[in-house]
Amino acid sequence: MTEPKYKNDLPGFTRAEFEHRAERARKLMRAEKLDGLLLTSQQNMEYLSGFISQFPWATPARPWYFLLPRLGQPVAIIPTVGIENWRATSWVKEVRAWRSPNPENEGLDILATTVKDIRRRYGRLGVELGAETRIGMPVGDLLRLRRKVRPFEMVDGTGVMRELRIIKSPAEIARLRRVCQIVCDTFDALPSFVAAGDSEKEIMRKIKAHASARGVDSTSYMMTNSGPGGVQSFIMGPTDRRIRAGDVLSIDAGCVYDGYFSDFDRNFAVGKASAEIERAHALLHKATDAGLAAARPGNTAEDVFKAQANVIAPAGDAEGFTRMGRFGHGLGRVMTEPPSNMLGDKTVLRPGMALSIEPGMTLSGGQLFIHEENVAITEDGCRLLTRRAPKRIPVIPC
Amino acid sequence: MTEPKYKNDLPGFTRAEFEHRAERARKLMRAEKLDGLLLTSQQNMEYLSGFISQFPWATPARPWYFLLPRLGQPVAIIPTVGIENWRATSWVKEVRAWRSPNPENEGLDILATTVKDIRRRYGRLGVELGAETRIGMPVGDLLRLRRKVRPFEMVDGTGVMRELRIIKSPAEIARLRRVCQIVCDTFDALPSFVAAGDSEKEIMRKIKAHASARGVDSTSYMMTNSGPGGVQSFIMGPTDRRIRAGDVLSIDAGCVYDGYFSDFDRNFAVGKASAEIERAHALLHKATDAGLAAARPGNTAEDVFKAQANVIAPAGDAEGFTRMGRFGHGLGRVMTEPPSNMLGDKTVLRPGMALSIEPGMTLSGGQLFIHEENVAITEDGCRLLTRRAPKRIPVIPC
Repeated sequence: MTEPKYKNDLPGFTRAEFEHRAERARKLMRAEKLDGLLLTSQQNMEYLSGFISQFPWATPARPWYFLLPRLGQPVAIIPTVGIENWRATSWVKEVRAWRSPNPENEGLDILATTVKDIRRRYGRLGVELGAETRIGMPVGDLLRLRRKVRPFEMVDGTGVMRELRIIKSPAEIARLRRVCQIVCDTFDALPSFVAAGDSEKEIMRKIKAHASARGVDSTSYMMTNSGPGGVQSFIMGPTDRRIRAGDVLSIDAGCVYDGYFSDFDRNFAVGKASAEIERAHALLHKATDAGLAAARPGNTAEDVFKAQANVIAPAGDAEGFTRMGRFGHGLGRVMTEPPSNMLGDKTVLRPGMALSIEPGMTLSGGQLFIHEENVAITEDGCRLLTRRAPKRIPVIPC
Repeated sequence: MTEPKYKNDLPGFTRAEFEHRAERARKLMRAEKLDGLLLTSQQNMEYLSGFISQFPWATPARPWYFLLPRLGQPVAIIPTVGIENWRATSWVKEVRAWRSPNPENEGLDILATTVKDIRRRYGRLGVELGAETRIGMPVGDLLRLRRKVRPFEMVDGTGVMRELRIIKSPAEIARLRRVCQIVCDTFDALPSFVAAGDSEKEIMRKIKAHASARGVDSTSYMMTNSGPGGVQSFIMGPTDRRIRAGDVLSIDAGCVYDGYFSDFDRNFAVGKASAEIERAHALLHKATDAGLAAARPGNTAEDVFKAQANVIAPAGDAEGFTRMGRFGHGLGRVMTEPPSNMLGDKTVLRPGMALSIEPGMTLSGGQLFIHEENVAITEDGCRLLTRRAPKRIPVIPC
């Protein structure tokens, strides 16, 4: 096996960090007039509780619930299978449990009782209803719960979690940088372990094996596309198609280190790059530079889009945009998070935000070509989490 | 890199198979008086449409919708980014699209229009509300859609998809067998690439690297626990704890091949197994035999539980059950699917079902010990998808 270059040497999240997150959440809850916030999605529950297990998210028979009241201690309402593990690893010590699976009543009564015990001032319970959220329980149960928690009214609490998570702490940024650096190592090594004749599926598995051995925890998203003179898609693949001279190979890697995602791509020419690809690569490199320059406090996500589009459009094509809809987005515990670098997104950038800068364009044969880097917004600009893609497209010899 | 032993040689799902699935779905819809079935979860959309992309499930800013009417052709309602890819790869050719992200209206109007165009007899639209389902769109949007589709009433359509997917076709069983066989290869090789002194996290990454190189597409679930004389948990890990002589190492592997999950574990003694572990291993091996014998058409999921519990309880402990809640479950496109092998689950087993047989017990020091195999129900019994765990616990030399 390859020796991993990175050791598990990042200090863990401290209790103080979790208490700070909860305090910020409560402040936002007061502003939105919420007496409680009920969370069931992986990213929100992990973010506030620090309880990390692959189990709840792989076995949908057993939902897990987390309740943060405006006043009083947070409470986990979970299947009995998890009680001891939760108590041993989360800073949240108040745990209630039911024996699950129990399809007749998956903890709804104990959950409703817990909700109704919280101090009622506004009569409003926030749940995850809004854009970009996916709840971790059946919708039918959420609707049943809505009746059970009366007189509390269920309202959208998504805004609280969005605002909370959009600003990353230094410990979060360190994890994002770590995962990006490992994936950069794998991309750097790629021409040494991928060869003409490999299929897209084989290439995907080799990359996953390499990045896993080097230290990422998960290689869950590994988009692998290839095609003559460029790829027809950036959302499909891998297929059994074998790469050959004249191809472009595009890999978009969403890997995870200690809960935090990378999301950036790299392109490779097989054998030799065409003149068109060389030009497109140089153009997108320049568009990325413009995006990096615009990614600074005070600018909006829309500004980051425009800076990139202003480089690409005069040179010919910005249609990549109309197909992609945006030129990058936030990232963190989810591979894509708010904001969206697109027209109309007026989110103001602040230090601690993490973004992908992702310009794209369409080539003469209809192929899509995309560059992507990940950055963290600092006090006076941004700092790369990735190592910049080379100015000329790397070549897989054949 | 390790040469993969398995090539991508399984024939793909045929158009006839998808048409058969849709026909069965429509029959079940008639029985449940549904005019249409709206699907947004990965497993259900992929199962009926054959459109496979990692993209929709990693980027929650853009939901994807699939509508199967009782009469007429199925329709995909998707972000414009996917139109060409969908048309090129799915048997479903009717595609409507909107430019996404568009947080103000993520395709809801075009989706509502499409729903209202279907032939109305019962006035009922099935959506995924029920047990073990997770929708692939924000709940707030589903509630808005509920108003927009009137006079159609939204009701639970989960039963249709549960009944449809619980019986696997030979092509589905072939994929389950393939992923189980690759993971068996990795487990067989494990004592050669894991050593005392490795941390649980390092071990997890080595297993992921090995299985990825051998041919699985995803190693998304890789529970990795260790402890002296047994593990304290089967839902945590990996941590930075290093394995040493006297430990038990337990790995529970949910890997994916072409969309289908393995879900089985293997236990290893580090250096030497204690007498208690040897006895427990032999007991759970016998309990698994009993579960395998009970896994046959006509028996219920509850019978499979009882057969295993009847072996474990007289020997001392069946408390493992009270912590786990069940002794196995269905598997397929999700790592755990209905039914549950537990008291009260009267689901009658039929040929084509795929199950895990998963007896567990508690050891004298409070440690959990679990065995797990995966099987497919046949006409007259069941057939292993895994290769049976050895009768004596394998040892990692040190």
